[in-house]
Amino acid sequence: MKNYILQDENAVYFECGYSCDNVIYISISGDNYFITDARYEIEAKLMARNCEVIITNDLIGQSKKILQKSKIKKISFDPNDFSLFSYEKLKDDLKIQFIQAPNFSKEKRLIKSDKEVELIRMAMKLGRKGFKRFSDYLKKDGLNKSEKYLFFKAKEFMSNMGELDLSFDPIVAINENSAKPHALPTNKLFTNNDFLLVDAGVKYERYCSDRTCCTSMNKSLNFKREQKFYSKLEQKIYDTVLKSQQKAIAKARVGMKASQIDKFARDVIEKAGYGKYFIHSTGHGVGLDIHEYPNINSRNDVILENNMVFTVEPGIYLNGKFGVRIEDTVVMKNGRAEIL
Amino acid sequence: MKNYILQDENAVYFECGYSCDNVIYISISGDNYFITDARYEIEAKLMARNCEVIITNDLIGQSKKILQKSKIKKISFDPNDFSLFSYEKLKDDLKIQFIQAPNFSKEKRLIKSDKEVELIRMAMKLGRKGFKRFSDYLKKDGLNKSEKYLFFKAKEFMSNMGELDLSFDPIVAINENSAKPHALPTNKLFTNNDFLLVDAGVKYERYCSDRTCCTSMNKSLNFKREQKFYSKLEQKIYDTVLKSQQKAIAKARVGMKASQIDKFARDVIEKAGYGKYFIHSTGHGVGLDIHEYPNINSRNDVILENNMVFTVEPGIYLNGKFGVRIEDTVVMKNGRAEIL
Repeated sequence: MKNYILQDENAVYFECGYSCDNVIYISISGDNYFITDARYEIEAKLMARNCEVIITNDLIGQSKKILQKSKIKKISFDPNDFSLFSYEKLKDDLKIQFIQAPNFSKEKRLIKSDKEVELIRMAMKLGRKGFKRFSDYLKKDGLNKSEKYLFFKAKEFMSNMGELDLSFDPIVAINENSAKPHALPTNKLFTNNDFLLVDAGVKYERYCSDRTCCTSMNKSLNFKREQKFYSKLEQKIYDTVLKSQQKAIAKARVGMKASQIDKFARDVIEKAGYGKYFIHSTGHGVGLDIHEYPNINSRNDVILENNMVFTVEPGIYLNGKFGVRIEDTVVMKNGRAEIL
Repeated sequence: MKNYILQDENAVYFECGYSCDNVIYISISGDNYFITDARYEIEAKLMARNCEVIITNDLIGQSKKILQKSKIKKISFDPNDFSLFSYEKLKDDLKIQFIQAPNFSKEKRLIKSDKEVELIRMAMKLGRKGFKRFSDYLKKDGLNKSEKYLFFKAKEFMSNMGELDLSFDPIVAINENSAKPHALPTNKLFTNNDFLLVDAGVKYERYCSDRTCCTSMNKSLNFKREQKFYSKLEQKIYDTVLKSQQKAIAKARVGMKASQIDKFARDVIEKAGYGKYFIHSTGHGVGLDIHEYPNINSRNDVILENNMVFTVEPGIYLNGKFGVRIEDTVVMKNGRAEIL
């Protein structure tokens, strides 16, 4: 793609190694422009690579001037990335054809560089440390705390007292609340043998981690993959989901369709008789955005290649009782999936 | 406006008293539809008022069906509220004229109801309690803590350990960092007599508070309006900004233009010789969004009316030294501005 215009914060970061929440980035035959306002001047000039930093109060007006001066005839953009209002203001009066290229930045970022894989590996490592700090706390002081308070503490421990940014607000869900894939925390208290699901991630140099663990309240509480539950049903469902997840990871190969990974995971759960309780897709890409390509679902025919990074996260949700989801982020490496 | 379509979360909340992060809301001659996915079914059906809740995986497809069936000829929407991609998908194949009404929800919310004023009053009260908890902490334990750590603690105290949502990430800025209106926290340590600016707010029933205080590190640290600074320059600048803010609030009257409030504040700072260091507008409306109407700047000719709620926050920023901003949120009541 020769000429393109972007404003998504992570898409711009991918282009030049710096970004902020008010930017338009234009690339014209390899000449790049980072257009922002005075608040970001110092950092942008120091950190944005291979581009001219332009400071203005009118980002769209300045973009129009650059486009006009360039005399190009066509420019590509992502129609998800511009509101109708911004798009119309931008193209008004310009004799340039705007070509819709939906999600082209996410397509560019589908296969990670080795460096990006290492950044996500580090984010996963820091994330696991956060889970460990949180489980140490839960074991010692978690009893009779509310879900809302545990949600607050999860943010404290995952971020290491604010040192790290979070990939997203964690999910901390007890018993029946864990049956909702996007549970919001309540005033419910965490008591002995209660089931607990935690879905959380942190960022390292803007790259995200993503992981989900299930456990229960007892004296040896931890977030390891082997878990002993007081309830037999919880144990059965957990073991089924774990088998599904481990099988999908073990059998993933470069050259397969993404949908095949979904099928590996879904088959185990369907054979156990819980197919209709696995109500979401098996995974999603992870990178600068917490949701990137490739999508791991039953419809995605993209072929897996080395250095793709994605989650494997099957789940079974028993409405009114509890829900189990087990999630790791993997990279395709030497033809196979490796847990990061 | 007879027929309109919305997807902004707060705009939808204003219509029906419930909202979520995946919704399209349609109003056709007073018949209202809240279209969302299965994750929000229970809450939406319980809480969304005066509308039919429709659960679907395809929000835009379902919206098209409703529009088609209605046989209306025109529908209004906010072009800031839809990406080009969503807009084109929505109108494709429909024989309905889409009429651009930029910011029509913000216009509707310009004058608050008495109930909304009371919710913002409560948010401001809870916000002041957060400032008090934070100043008690700073006085006792703030010495030699980093700006980053104080940023983390500000979130803890403002949210009361996660009990309240924040209106936005607080700004906690020491000395020269306070001269940047949107400072990000650094590893700089907070030491004796250091200047400190804190800009923070919380939400009560989704309504925001917004307040900015300046102080310095000493044994009687507090966030009251009367402040004693060690540095004479800091004292002079602070007193100038305080006079500017208090004068603008005292002289505000219903029937004036919004730009007149900006002028009251700016005149004091210009007379003191610091006009060019007051680099932003005097205020903004506050409500469900932290930035609403009316804008209080030199160009806005909107006439002030009772029950408008907005911030008054002049500032002087001395690059490389420090910056002072003093902010309260006020309501126009009985013709005058009252601090909430």
